[in-house]
Amino acid sequence: MTPSSNPHTADGIRLVGFDGDDTLWRSEDYYRGAQADFESIVGRYVDLADGRAHERLYAVEMRNLALFGYGVKGMVLSMIEAAVEITDARVSASDLHRIVALGKSLLQHPVELLPGIREAVEAIGTRHDLVLITKGDLFHQEAKVKQSGLAGLFRRIEIVSEKDPQTYARLFEEFELAPHQFAMVGNSLRSDIAPVLGLGGWGVYMPYHVTWAHEAEADVADDAPRLRRVAQASELPAALADIASAASG
Amino acid sequence: MTPSSNPHTADGIRLVGFDGDDTLWRSEDYYRGAQADFESIVGRYVDLADGRAHERLYAVEMRNLALFGYGVKGMVLSMIEAAVEITDARVSASDLHRIVALGKSLLQHPVELLPGIREAVEAIGTRHDLVLITKGDLFHQEAKVKQSGLAGLFRRIEIVSEKDPQTYARLFEEFELAPHQFAMVGNSLRSDIAPVLGLGGWGVYMPYHVTWAHEAEADVADDAPRLRRVAQASELPAALADIASAASG
Repeated sequence: MTPSSNPHTADGIRLVGFDGDDTLWRSEDYYRGAQADFESIVGRYVDLADGRAHERLYAVEMRNLALFGYGVKGMVLSMIEAAVEITDARVSASDLHRIVALGKSLLQHPVELLPGIREAVEAIGTRHDLVLITKGDLFHQEAKVKQSGLAGLFRRIEIVSEKDPQTYARLFEEFELAPHQFAMVGNSLRSDIAPVLGLGGWGVYMPYHVTWAHEAEADVADDAPRLRRVAQASELPAALADIASAASG
Repeated sequence: MTPSSNPHTADGIRLVGFDGDDTLWRSEDYYRGAQADFESIVGRYVDLADGRAHERLYAVEMRNLALFGYGVKGMVLSMIEAAVEITDARVSASDLHRIVALGKSLLQHPVELLPGIREAVEAIGTRHDLVLITKGDLFHQEAKVKQSGLAGLFRRIEIVSEKDPQTYARLFEEFELAPHQFAMVGNSLRSDIAPVLGLGGWGVYMPYHVTWAHEAEADVADDAPRLRRVAQASELPAALADIASAASG
């Protein structure tokens, strides 16, 4: 990859990265829906206080994360385990099968772009080379990228298992970039913003209306110098222009 | 990536690809073990003819492949579905939990290199640039590559969701290679050999003592002109030398 091949790249930012889930397209809403269905299934066996089934599921997910990684299939396996634990193994085979079916429908939901994102990505693409950096299940993410119709706007699609400083550092090396020549756009402080700022890059934080607890865990100051915050996709081109100007100044 | 950066690459083969599972390290044996455990679990509910549980599991796996992709997690979800179907939903929650545990132990088995493979890869690496091309679950494959201790021998690690002609064609483009400058080493006619030969590349088929039925499905003639067959890793350097000589002749 030659990130500087875009003739309009005349400033200090040579590459702009975009997250996928809840930045380009809706995702967490579907997970929340599946979790509500999970709670209603186990709720037929045990009388749990509000949110308690969700908490126990989250604890199982965190315990399994190092083994399963991110994505729907690992979540479903954790749901099965949590359902067995929560019900003291009283949950029926049919109900556990229903949980597998929840996962299947999550894997099949249509890809719904967030409002204004296509226009924003196109506008930023006239000034910068773009890369899509998304994490989770390879197979599912590839399917979503394909269905999104946005793949052609990106010079490269990177599906990674974790978005930590090591992952970004490896990408900078592959892209032959210094960190300060890179800006990342995403809805997760933990995955999209904190590691990039930490390495010396730029971040545009665009929060989504719901965020998985795990992704919200990050220590980023509101006034971090290379951070911009936008409320919606239509504000992205201006935020990137501001960053490009600051980065070349 | 600059595949020609190896100073010893003086012949017509510029890059050699290696498969991972059952080419570099043992894999299918562990899957077979898990499937035997699966059969013994459902065998407590129904009296099936030999191999019948395995056939029904395979049918469920094939039905789910387009949704789950390859890898342990998808297999476990298919096992749960198959167990519910085979037992007419009589299987207990504890037994379904046991199936999840089978998957967890599959994801944790130690990586065991096949005999002589490290020496063979090192020897071939003195003459060619190497790439590891493996398919399946991103998270699990990354863990196996890391544990194998072989990662440093490869210029690049490619974890892909499918090994079909499109995938190899994309890799040739990224590596800036013509197909006839590439040779692939692997144990799967379907995934490692047929698509590469079909595009005009070279293949070294090293069968493993067990092969998943799905991977054996391929139409490759024993006397295909750009195909070599070896019985064990120690024969690989000579097979590659033979290919390199034929490719530059």
